[in-house]
Amino acid sequence: MATIMEKYFATVDNISDHFVERLQKAVAIPSVSADPARRHDVVRMGEWLANELRGLGADVDVRPLSKQAGSEVDLPPIILGRYGSDRNKKTIMIYGHYDVQPASKSDGWESDPFVLTSDDQGRMFGRGSTDDKGPVLAWLNTIESYQNAGIPFPVNLLMCFEGMEESGSIGLEGFINSEAQGYFAETDAICISDSCWLGEKPCLTYGLRGLNYFSVTVSGPAQDLHSGIFGGAVHEPLGDLVHVLASLSDGDGTIKIIGLPEVVAPLTEKETCLYRDIQFTNEDLHSTIGSKTGIFNTTKETLMARWRYPSLSVHGIEGAFSTPGSKTVIPARVTGKFSLRTVPNMTVEQVNELVIQHVREEFQKLNSKNILEISVLQKGKWWLTDPDHWNYVAASKAIEDVWGLKPDLIREGGSIPIALVMEQAIGKNILLLPMGRSTDAAHSPREKIDRNNYIEGIKTLGAYLHHVAG
Amino acid sequence: MATIMEKYFATVDNISDHFVERLQKAVAIPSVSADPARRHDVVRMGEWLANELRGLGADVDVRPLSKQAGSEVDLPPIILGRYGSDRNKKTIMIYGHYDVQPASKSDGWESDPFVLTSDDQGRMFGRGSTDDKGPVLAWLNTIESYQNAGIPFPVNLLMCFEGMEESGSIGLEGFINSEAQGYFAETDAICISDSCWLGEKPCLTYGLRGLNYFSVTVSGPAQDLHSGIFGGAVHEPLGDLVHVLASLSDGDGTIKIIGLPEVVAPLTEKETCLYRDIQFTNEDLHSTIGSKTGIFNTTKETLMARWRYPSLSVHGIEGAFSTPGSKTVIPARVTGKFSLRTVPNMTVEQVNELVIQHVREEFQKLNSKNILEISVLQKGKWWLTDPDHWNYVAASKAIEDVWGLKPDLIREGGSIPIALVMEQAIGKNILLLPMGRSTDAAHSPREKIDRNNYIEGIKTLGAYLHHVAG
Repeated sequence: MATIMEKYFATVDNISDHFVERLQKAVAIPSVSADPARRHDVVRMGEWLANELRGLGADVDVRPLSKQAGSEVDLPPIILGRYGSDRNKKTIMIYGHYDVQPASKSDGWESDPFVLTSDDQGRMFGRGSTDDKGPVLAWLNTIESYQNAGIPFPVNLLMCFEGMEESGSIGLEGFINSEAQGYFAETDAICISDSCWLGEKPCLTYGLRGLNYFSVTVSGPAQDLHSGIFGGAVHEPLGDLVHVLASLSDGDGTIKIIGLPEVVAPLTEKETCLYRDIQFTNEDLHSTIGSKTGIFNTTKETLMARWRYPSLSVHGIEGAFSTPGSKTVIPARVTGKFSLRTVPNMTVEQVNELVIQHVREEFQKLNSKNILEISVLQKGKWWLTDPDHWNYVAASKAIEDVWGLKPDLIREGGSIPIALVMEQAIGKNILLLPMGRSTDAAHSPREKIDRNNYIEGIKTLGAYLHHVAG
Repeated sequence: MATIMEKYFATVDNISDHFVERLQKAVAIPSVSADPARRHDVVRMGEWLANELRGLGADVDVRPLSKQAGSEVDLPPIILGRYGSDRNKKTIMIYGHYDVQPASKSDGWESDPFVLTSDDQGRMFGRGSTDDKGPVLAWLNTIESYQNAGIPFPVNLLMCFEGMEESGSIGLEGFINSEAQGYFAETDAICISDSCWLGEKPCLTYGLRGLNYFSVTVSGPAQDLHSGIFGGAVHEPLGDLVHVLASLSDGDGTIKIIGLPEVVAPLTEKETCLYRDIQFTNEDLHSTIGSKTGIFNTTKETLMARWRYPSLSVHGIEGAFSTPGSKTVIPARVTGKFSLRTVPNMTVEQVNELVIQHVREEFQKLNSKNILEISVLQKGKWWLTDPDHWNYVAASKAIEDVWGLKPDLIREGGSIPIALVMEQAIGKNILLLPMGRSTDAAHSPREKIDRNNYIEGIKTLGAYLHHVAG
């Protein structure tokens, strides 16, 4: 094994400048999906990607989607690619996206965000460098490196690249569902590289939290009232609302919704062990949030709070006085927004039911004559997979080969809805294999990927496919 | 007496068309103080008023104020007028304002807001008709009616008319203080007609609540955080803030600030009697607020809650997510705004102290690592006077003469800061003598005064001065 991989790694190093040039070309296409005026650039990026794949000998299928709802603009196509179709090899489905977040120099970039610009520390700045053009191209570079090294490609690849990920992945879920038993039918396992390390150490992600997002409206008077004239004589909607919102959790974040803590999966010894060696400290948390306002004293508690326990956040209030200065208003109708991040074994329906019941009961206690309405604005299930699956074992070995250490097995607190969609539609194990570092500033000004992460990332993907086959 | 007043009343009726024409001319000058581009119209209105006064034989003194802070625009002048200086007569100081709220037809007016337009029910629509050009001109009309009736004027009048009332009365407080022992030194009592009846019955106002307005800021992270990534691991400023805000009062409006209810003046039997016959029902409240969300079942409780008990209103939150839709944000820094309406015997300093202490203690209970700051944005004392004073007795008799009934003695829940300023500077009894009806929509589109209220108002003011002298 070592000799084959050594040859592969040496080839990657030999043509690494070529791979950086490929990333330069991709970053130069401003494929911002949020801006309809830039849609032609997103389409152009998809065509460029399809051509690169064709140049590597992949079978490419450019699949148009419909028009974007409520507009005359076409959605960018899904780029499908197949590389190899040997029945004796495993088939790995990979997903990535070729669109990017908006960026303009005035947001705080030191150089043109659409010109890949390197510094003397090997950081390569540019929109999409880490999210997700770098990882997408790393797959292409893996194919090319195997070809240049003269090593047979170890698996069949089924590629699925979308152009609307930064704008809600419009059209993707339906497409995945319709092709699950079609184009993707041969899939043995799935790999997604579209996230970053937790800190400065490679990791594999095996879980995500879900999201139930609520809106609770309290209304009373027909119009806003003067607090001098009416204060004390009428039930104030905002007064009711802050009571309801305060009833949801304690000052230390403990959720007070009856029945909800009981459905959280108990902590097992095996799971506890996974937290033991994770390279992360509370100082890392404090440096990221810019304050020492973390709730817990130990790293383990902090990580568990982010990954394996539910959390409740109040986001804001619509309809109240929200600008600077003082206004003596009793707002007539106010809407509080809050959400729960959910974890095993909570179900979407159960959470909705418990939350709605709690909110209604707390409002009832106020004996207010106002009217309360509650609705669910978003709902998405958590995702958790088995990190002992061969898909993870292969990736773990690959990281040991390339980085000389075992990856941390982590979860994330946020949601990546497409992971759940794919798992449910295709029914195979999904591996989240991050490529960039926590400092890469995806979605922010000065997004970057380290040249080292990009090149070692190509090695990691190649070694991963090698171990999948082995 | 009856014969003198009968003669006076008949004169008012005889020249009532002339008085309506005077109001037409005044309404036609769009003296909007909030709009610096209209400042020349405010000045023009002041000059017109001064000329009308001169025409009636008053000594007029146009007093310029400084430039408006932060602008190159002059403040409109204070118009001072003296009518009569007989040492054997009482001297009544009157106050009013010649500026108006903004108005444009597109706000919902059926006719040009700066053209006084009558309908067949005797309603005269126009900006400033009831607030406060009608009442100001009623004083002039009173002088003219006494002159036309050939009756000696019963008192000396000291007039003070400002042009910035709708914009915070900038410059007035300093002016009043500086002239208290000067121009206004001879004052025996003060009368202000710049408010409306409680309902459909004449009333006299003898009390106003004060206002302490607070801003409480909770801050933690250096920037807004993603609730998926950090939810559960960090102290959330908005979570802390809703707890603090909810701790201020109960669902039924009961203030929970320790020590605060104890300083409310106990209800006396004499005061209770004042509420007995007030023409106001809970249905009136419900029709004004457009909902049946009043807290109390009896009219007396409702009125006491608005007038003689403190109230606490939460107005809104700055810095949180306040627009439609869903956003998974943990706001980094949020500022809650709330205020207390204060009543005898609360002092401004005591209320500030108790509120700040309560807020700090409630925040402490949360054990949050976030930072809390609280500040006072506005403070103004309550005002309460003796409705048995001869000033009130004279007005009450006048209303009986004109309307054939005893006025309700009422208080108001809001604040009229100038009343307190005058009382403290000049040290004499102040009478608030409303002229228009509760339906007059001061500050709103379709502001009006009923011709009947205007003309009978002129009679009321004349009879009031007659009884002051008697």
